[in-house]
Amino acid sequence: MAELAARSGLTVATIKFYLREGLLQPGRRTSVNQAVYDASHLERLRLIRALAKVAGLPLDTIREVVQVVSGQSSILDAMAVTQDALVGERGDEDSEDVEPAAAETLAHVIEARGWRYQPGSPAHSAAIRAVAELQAEDLTMLVDRLDDYARAADAVGRIDVQAVAGADSLDATIRGVVLGSILRRPLLDALVLLSQQHHANVLDQEDEHA
Amino acid sequence: MAELAARSGLTVATIKFYLREGLLQPGRRTSVNQAVYDASHLERLRLIRALAKVAGLPLDTIREVVQVVSGQSSILDAMAVTQDALVGERGDEDSEDVEPAAAETLAHVIEARGWRYQPGSPAHSAAIRAVAELQAEDLTMLVDRLDDYARAADAVGRIDVQAVAGADSLDATIRGVVLGSILRRPLLDALVLLSQQHHANVLDQEDEHA
Repeated sequence: MAELAARSGLTVATIKFYLREGLLQPGRRTSVNQAVYDASHLERLRLIRALAKVAGLPLDTIREVVQVVSGQSSILDAMAVTQDALVGERGDEDSEDVEPAAAETLAHVIEARGWRYQPGSPAHSAAIRAVAELQAEDLTMLVDRLDDYARAADAVGRIDVQAVAGADSLDATIRGVVLGSILRRPLLDALVLLSQQHHANVLDQEDEHA
Repeated sequence: MAELAARSGLTVATIKFYLREGLLQPGRRTSVNQAVYDASHLERLRLIRALAKVAGLPLDTIREVVQVVSGQSSILDAMAVTQDALVGERGDEDSEDVEPAAAETLAHVIEARGWRYQPGSPAHSAAIRAVAELQAEDLTMLVDRLDDYARAADAVGRIDVQAVAGADSLDATIRGVVLGSILRRPLLDALVLLSQQHHANVLDQEDEHA
């Protein structure tokens, strides 16, 4: 237990708490007050730590994610439950009914890309809401380029999935999905800003030479 | 003035406030208590509204952005001041000094893309911090794919710049830059999630057939 604490960077008290809450599987008992923990326990603790500390998810949500992992699920299931936990359920009605115009616009984009997705998932609702906000602000120059954005998003999602698919265990995969979703987002945002600087530079120079 | 209010969706009191604060240029006086406003005033109000309501920027920052617009600046200047206002200055030291390893990793990626960017800009600092966090969490599978992410980010930034460059006036361009930055972000996030679903689906099916 002491070694597990040292390796995971968590306190013994925290690890005992996760054991009591059923988030960490029990070790193999060797005597009444002695148990052996292995690499799977360390991997699970790293996952719980990521969900709690980095993602800031509540205990109930962490339990849900851990249950999926314990159930020997596929990457697909893992990604679905992680996405739902991270995007969060919105209490309101399905975006598809509230924003039919945006839903239809998005449907065309999805069809063009050939995406097989989960209709009604929080991600799908979020996409419809985002399109609806662009339409409400009359940002036609962005709405007109939805296909281009979807193509770029396709590249990002493919890299994300490929990156985590190679992990050694499902725990490591989910940790990759969770941390990837949380930490990759500011990275992509910042890289896009740098790319904007570059392309604005290019445009400026073209104007000067024109 | 009443017509300006009706067209912009703002109250007369709000418009008068923007006039007093020097954010909105004065109308052409036709008598002591009568002034004529034109399309440029409406465009400016739409920009101020976007900065205040949608971006939630403080008055001082809005003034900075509006000054750039009034100065007949280029898209490049407009983008720089908008990015700085949106990303926000971090009080701490330059990320480049705090995170030399992450800064070097990022430098290689930027060089590979051939990006001309503003070193020391908030966007550059944010990118260094994002790389540093991935490295701190030992997410090598993501760090190893930085080049791929940068390629995808390049596509997004190019679309962003092309979308706003075609606007009729600099006010409209900046409004596009501001609203684009704020509203396009959740759109791209949601599209990436849908793309993740698709690619996880594809991977799952490959596993079944294997």
